[in-house]
Amino acid sequence: MDARERLGAWIESAPVRNFIIGVILFNAVVLGLETSEEAMAAAGPLIVFLDRLCLGIFTVEIGLKLVAWGPRFFRSGWNWFDFIIVGIALVPATQGFAVLRALRILRVLRLITAAPRLRRVVEGFVTALPGMGSVFLLMAIIFYIGAVMATKLFGAAFPDWFGDLGLSAYSLFQIMTLESWSMGIVRPVMEVYPYAWAFFVPFIMVTTFAVVNLLVGLIVNSMQDAHAEEANAATSDYRDEVLRRLEAIEKRLGER
Amino acid sequence: MDARERLGAWIESAPVRNFIIGVILFNAVVLGLETSEEAMAAAGPLIVFLDRLCLGIFTVEIGLKLVAWGPRFFRSGWNWFDFIIVGIALVPATQGFAVLRALRILRVLRLITAAPRLRRVVEGFVTALPGMGSVFLLMAIIFYIGAVMATKLFGAAFPDWFGDLGLSAYSLFQIMTLESWSMGIVRPVMEVYPYAWAFFVPFIMVTTFAVVNLLVGLIVNSMQDAHAEEANAATSDYRDEVLRRLEAIEKRLGER
Amino acid sequence: MDARERLGAWIESAPVRNFIIGVILFNAVVLGLETSEEAMAAAGPLIVFLDRLCLGIFTVEIGLKLVAWGPRFFRSGWNWFDFIIVGIALVPATQGFAVLRALRILRVLRLITAAPRLRRVVEGFVTALPGMGSVFLLMAIIFYIGAVMATKLFGAAFPDWFGDLGLSAYSLFQIMTLESWSMGIVRPVMEVYPYAWAFFVPFIMVTTFAVVNLLVGLIVNSMQDAHAEEANAATSDYRDEVLRRLEAIEKRLGER
Amino acid sequence: MDARERLGAWIESAPVRNFIIGVILFNAVVLGLETSEEAMAAAGPLIVFLDRLCLGIFTVEIGLKLVAWGPRFFRSGWNWFDFIIVGIALVPATQGFAVLRALRILRVLRLITAAPRLRRVVEGFVTALPGMGSVFLLMAIIFYIGAVMATKLFGAAFPDWFGDLGLSAYSLFQIMTLESWSMGIVRPVMEVYPYAWAFFVPFIMVTTFAVVNLLVGLIVNSMQDAHAEEANAATSDYRDEVLRRLEAIEKRLGER
Repeated sequence: MDARERLGAWIESAPVRNFIIGVILFNAVVLGLETSEEAMAAAGPLIVFLDRLCLGIFTVEIGLKLVAWGPRFFRSGWNWFDFIIVGIALVPATQGFAVLRALRILRVLRLITAAPRLRRVVEGFVTALPGMGSVFLLMAIIFYIGAVMATKLFGAAFPDWFGDLGLSAYSLFQIMTLESWSMGIVRPVMEVYPYAWAFFVPFIMVTTFAVVNLLVGLIVNSMQDAHAEEANAATSDYRDEVLRRLEAIEKRLGER
Repeated sequence: MDARERLGAWIESAPVRNFIIGVILFNAVVLGLETSEEAMAAAGPLIVFLDRLCLGIFTVEIGLKLVAWGPRFFRSGWNWFDFIIVGIALVPATQGFAVLRALRILRVLRLITAAPRLRRVVEGFVTALPGMGSVFLLMAIIFYIGAVMATKLFGAAFPDWFGDLGLSAYSLFQIMTLESWSMGIVRPVMEVYPYAWAFFVPFIMVTTFAVVNLLVGLIVNSMQDAHAEEANAATSDYRDEVLRRLEAIEKRLGER
Repeated sequence: MDARERLGAWIESAPVRNFIIGVILFNAVVLGLETSEEAMAAAGPLIVFLDRLCLGIFTVEIGLKLVAWGPRFFRSGWNWFDFIIVGIALVPATQGFAVLRALRILRVLRLITAAPRLRRVVEGFVTALPGMGSVFLLMAIIFYIGAVMATKLFGAAFPDWFGDLGLSAYSLFQIMTLESWSMGIVRPVMEVYPYAWAFFVPFIMVTTFAVVNLLVGLIVNSMQDAHAEEANAATSDYRDEVLRRLEAIEKRLGER
Repeated sequence: MDARERLGAWIESAPVRNFIIGVILFNAVVLGLETSEEAMAAAGPLIVFLDRLCLGIFTVEIGLKLVAWGPRFFRSGWNWFDFIIVGIALVPATQGFAVLRALRILRVLRLITAAPRLRRVVEGFVTALPGMGSVFLLMAIIFYIGAVMATKLFGAAFPDWFGDLGLSAYSLFQIMTLESWSMGIVRPVMEVYPYAWAFFVPFIMVTTFAVVNLLVGLIVNSMQDAHAEEANAATSDYRDEVLRRLEAIEKRLGER
């Protein structure tokens, strides 16, 4: 075991891992305090210092991992995730990039990388996504068509809601979530275009149906996976046993 | 293989198919640009020309399919779908038919016809519908009864919401989606008819329960299909094997 | 077969049944027309006459059934249903009972009694209810407790929403459906009682969780029923076959 | 059986149990009457007396249980539950603790302790919770990150909604429930920060997806439990039977 391997093993060891989780939690609290004006007035410089200290620890940690594993570091999606999240925080936050400063809280997401149970949940989410790819693509097509139609039909009279493709897509997303779709949007639109319901009601039905199908697909998939595993454990043992015994009987009968 | 068969094979070949998918996507972008005033001001005639070009290509494609397959063309629901969508775009858009111009974007739905995976998702949706026919019929009955009752009870005092059967049906659909049902509709109605809740609350419960049942039915059906397929693959092989062996043993015992 | 039995058979025969379904549908249209002022202005007396005619036919039908089956008529829940619905329509609608006139449309529900497929769906709904009894009882307890607490805590300051138990229960039902719960109710309440969220947010979580559990219970029950039936059909045949053969082999071995 | 055991048996006997259930129901009605001004004006002292009487009975009941079981009393979560609920009511309600007086209605929750069917439903809820621990933790992380980001980004311009971490968390909870998220919150925010949708739309998608996953997990778990039990009852009997017979055949063949 050379030095790099030993470094890799050390950085993955339980104490170091737990220390990092502790730093993440501490950093989360520090970043939370940063949002409080009183806390900043009372101990602003200390808070900023502690935040920088945490960031420094993360930077060293990732640096050591890079040294230990070299290019293999980038084979894991989780490492990319950590790398980008810490990298964002290192970009100097100038006036124009005030948003980047807000993104620093994303560092707390590193908890997911650090806690194996959370990691598994997120991996479960992510592996569920490809199976829903077709339905997502279909939703995208429906939204694009809906946005173009809404812009053409209602854009002139309601520029705030359907003025261009982006505004229409946002309004249709709102309508899909059923938030104020009728009292807020469709009833006012129907005062100008009395048949607007013929566009919006089918849109709601189709998108809701697609969402329900996504849900059903998800449930059925998880179900089957769970079922298959469970069933196989017990059943295939039993089946092998039966077939083995039957074979033994046949052989014995053949012998004589 | 005669000329028509060769034409049919050519039009279904991968390169032609992919070319058509490309044209659909290009047409989607063109129709999207048409909604932007700046784009139309800068290159209006070009955009309109490109849209017509795409339409021309689709017309030729469908014409060739008609030639290749003759009356068999109309046996497939997807061909009907393409035929109608392209047909709509060929209707000259006069003042009164401005809506038809908006419908041209429906051409993008041809993507579904062209991409087998999307086609299968939509076919999955469509085959799920008949199993839910009874529940849909029940919902229609509930809505009709609800609309007649709401019109009779609240129509005089709230003509905007319950003035006639159509308005009532729309308002009840809104109430079923739970959008502003209480603050927007039922509380104002209750100021005139204090017992209005005795109509609306049960209506919400019944329709929600019916929707949930639709959902459950859908899940259970998909489940069973999925389960049956999966189980059969492995199980019936095994069962055949067991029965065959038992038969062999019996025969051998009988022989002697 | 005596006269009463023959009458019972005749009234259940397909032609009579279909005639009654036709009358129900026709009556539904007539009752729909009654909501339209123009239709009533143009042909009011005719519409009222046709409605009475339909009612007369239903009364005769139920009278004949009563004659044919005697007291056995009341053994079926569906017969009670028909009896009550037709009975309501026979009550003279005085000023005070204007609501009863609106209830006449409930006659359309007789479609469910008449169409076996719809009947089965409703029976499916009804048989699902007892299994959910405990959860419903739990919801009732939660609502009662919530209503008493809300009335005591917020009743003085918000008499319109939480003035007495009934108003509180209605408001809590609205909050459970998530309609305007925050912008409409809780934010205004929080301006007077800043900690009101500590009551409402847990209430939303608990009731939503209970509703989800109802849903899950429903799915799991339907699932099991469906699964059990499906599995048994194929599996028990196979199992019987295997056991029978094994027995035959044992007997044959014993014989010798 | 000594005196304490006999006391324990008596207090758990059906008549005593049913008497306590009766007292709980009676107390629920009394506490409901307490919210009505008319009832309090007409019979205030009597209502207060009856409430105290019920409380006295509960206190005696719990006291007897404590005597009967001694320290074992506190081994059951349900006993803790009863103990705390009755304890709350015994705290003298001074001005500052008016809330405690409202909490007395929680006594009705003792119905759950008393009715075994309700108890099982609640235990079902509670045992479902740990399996969802990871997803809840994930939701908490997402909410914390969202609250910090929203406070930093929008806190200055919208102090009522995103002024501090608590307000932001509440607003994000409202947005997660989709209540007035767009018309009420995001559209006004977008007038100041046009790109605010890039924060809120993904937030809605992620939290909704997580909630859906919770639901799916719950269904799949319940399913598996239900399935496993049901399948085992019938299947393992059959399997044991097959294996026993095969063994018998083998032995018989070996004997000779």
